[in-house]
Amino acid sequence: MKPKLKAYDLLEKVRREAPVVHHLTNWVTIYDCAQIVKTLGASPVMAHAPEEVADMTRIASALVLNIGTLTVDFVEAMKLAAAAANRKGIPVILDVCGAGATELRDRKVFELLDQVKINVIKGNASEIARVSGQNIRTKGVDAGEVTTDLETLGQMLAARRRATVVITGKTDIVAGEKGIYRVRNGHVLMTSVVGTGCMAASVIGAFAAVEPDTPRAAAAALACYGIAAELAAKKARGPAAFKSALFDCLYNLDRPTVEKMQRIEA
Amino acid sequence: MKPKLKAYDLLEKVRREAPVVHHLTNWVTIYDCAQIVKTLGASPVMAHAPEEVADMTRIASALVLNIGTLTVDFVEAMKLAAAAANRKGIPVILDVCGAGATELRDRKVFELLDQVKINVIKGNASEIARVSGQNIRTKGVDAGEVTTDLETLGQMLAARRRATVVITGKTDIVAGEKGIYRVRNGHVLMTSVVGTGCMAASVIGAFAAVEPDTPRAAAAALACYGIAAELAAKKARGPAAFKSALFDCLYNLDRPTVEKMQRIEA
Amino acid sequence: MKPKLKAYDLLEKVRREAPVVHHLTNWVTIYDCAQIVKTLGASPVMAHAPEEVADMTRIASALVLNIGTLTVDFVEAMKLAAAAANRKGIPVILDVCGAGATELRDRKVFELLDQVKINVIKGNASEIARVSGQNIRTKGVDAGEVTTDLETLGQMLAARRRATVVITGKTDIVAGEKGIYRVRNGHVLMTSVVGTGCMAASVIGAFAAVEPDTPRAAAAALACYGIAAELAAKKARGPAAFKSALFDCLYNLDRPTVEKMQRIEA
Repeated sequence: MKPKLKAYDLLEKVRREAPVVHHLTNWVTIYDCAQIVKTLGASPVMAHAPEEVADMTRIASALVLNIGTLTVDFVEAMKLAAAAANRKGIPVILDVCGAGATELRDRKVFELLDQVKINVIKGNASEIARVSGQNIRTKGVDAGEVTTDLETLGQMLAARRRATVVITGKTDIVAGEKGIYRVRNGHVLMTSVVGTGCMAASVIGAFAAVEPDTPRAAAAALACYGIAAELAAKKARGPAAFKSALFDCLYNLDRPTVEKMQRIEA
Repeated sequence: MKPKLKAYDLLEKVRREAPVVHHLTNWVTIYDCAQIVKTLGASPVMAHAPEEVADMTRIASALVLNIGTLTVDFVEAMKLAAAAANRKGIPVILDVCGAGATELRDRKVFELLDQVKINVIKGNASEIARVSGQNIRTKGVDAGEVTTDLETLGQMLAARRRATVVITGKTDIVAGEKGIYRVRNGHVLMTSVVGTGCMAASVIGAFAAVEPDTPRAAAAALACYGIAAELAAKKARGPAAFKSALFDCLYNLDRPTVEKMQRIEA
Repeated sequence: MKPKLKAYDLLEKVRREAPVVHHLTNWVTIYDCAQIVKTLGASPVMAHAPEEVADMTRIASALVLNIGTLTVDFVEAMKLAAAAANRKGIPVILDVCGAGATELRDRKVFELLDQVKINVIKGNASEIARVSGQNIRTKGVDAGEVTTDLETLGQMLAARRRATVVITGKTDIVAGEKGIYRVRNGHVLMTSVVGTGCMAASVIGAFAAVEPDTPRAAAAALACYGIAAELAAKKARGPAAFKSALFDCLYNLDRPTVEKMQRIEA
């Protein structure tokens, strides 16, 4: 991997190019996913009707899928959108939200991975462990315990699925086919806010829309997002104030701040 | 049109009468549409089951439709609700969210306009251009470039569809069959917040619920909403703080403030 | 009923045990329902696909149902989830959101009450009156006027349905089969925020997940939630700031505050 990744360069590119990021996501955090993309200066669009998803992908520069409130029909619409994205050559990010919680989620995640090209597989430790084939039970949408070494886990899944694998946690791991990034930005208050994981996938989508090297895009995205969280945590005494500040700090991120605070290890 | 439109008079009427505003809207901004109506002192209700939409319309004083996350079935429910609203004689506001982005959206907007009576057609410049029959491509749900004179565009569509046409933008244009209002309130930070357009339609719905002259209702609604945005922008350094303040400023709007700040030209 | 109910004891238990609270709820306030559960230190999960609801209930400690944006299919999924919850013996909370507004809502509430075991029936005065068989019309999702004595109403419904009945209002009433709690915490600003009622049901769900005596759980839940609202109201001048502070005050509630402020009468 290229050694010098300046996260701000990519944020600037997102702001300048304002890519359309198409989502098929869950009904819980759909607003926040849209707003975090808008906050970056990009243009979110949420559309799930099977009759229009491929058409919408035509104007998009990235596609973000999230199975948080999946149904069978909804996943079929995801496949149509992803197939269109594959044809166009734009990156597809899959948040395997809740994988391991039910048999339906597992089955649908594997269907997606088998039937369309997914460029970035993103989840927490137990979700990614499950997608890697481990017999682990996710506690709803919150991470369960995983004993395997996460870097190895990510790299194996990346190799098998020929995808970038993102494991969010205290240290975010971005495993590409050629190497690993570790992103040590972020703040524990993120775990007290519903949707911080989903938003991470959307931020990665916006960055991947302007940077073809998806591990670089993902690492830069997570660094910027995590820096905003660190700044927000300084101002907040609870999850609601923190979330509000997270958006506003991300909106106002500037180059000196990002260059000083980014903690990406290649 | 009547020359003296005092926006606050209508806001006061909304607060006093607390009309029920029924919505069939998108899953992204549904909460904010409900909350903005509640913030005005009115009573939002969101219901989309085909078995109950007509029934719910019976207790409503306005109906707001928004195709942001449309499906074929959802639009059929909209038609049932709108037909019930038409029979009862309450105003129907249609936010043509994302018109021009996909063929499905265009087709469904035209079906709605052809099959039920829409009293207010609301969109941004490129959406309204598309609904007017121009071959323009909307960038997802954000406005694309439109070269036609917007006032002419609005008036032509108003005449053809016998409706009030609202084009939101730096200056909001309200085109009725008999004339135009220009509303110069609002703030550029609104474009950094997902849902400000959807909420505008809901505010118009609440005002139209208490004022039968829909162009007057729409202009007054947009002025009050825009004034709240201007006040909010003074306190906010980012989209999240701005949005929070927008609600609270609207909630606290008083007559002297509105009378001093309203910028409506007939 | 046991005379000494210390609400904080149960809040502490929620924080310690972090139960999974499964929701099938409405699309308007789904985020807030999840976030309020997360704010308590518990783990929300929202899943509605008929293929997985029973499976998800297996990892949950309580189930919250809310018919705010019901459809016929969605209620069928609720029945599957509730049946699984009944088999497992975990509490089921039903928010009869909008009962009395349409014939569909009434019919579906009665189907749920007849076909599965509901442990807590929760609504505002007019909703509960309707569920009790009174010929009352709910104004959308806001409470209409009820003339019957609410305590009698709650107790009769509790006896008939063998459930705990919660009637939210200025004084919240918790009617069990053996007696009544009156909770005098809360603040009028709650009525200016969409979703405070839905969130109350989620808070009750989290408390009922750790306390088998459901009237106790409900009373303690409403006291803690109401105390957070009182604290939040001191800081807020509008509904948005109030809502944000409500989350953060609940997150930071400590024993001395709750013990000083709780106003539960048995």
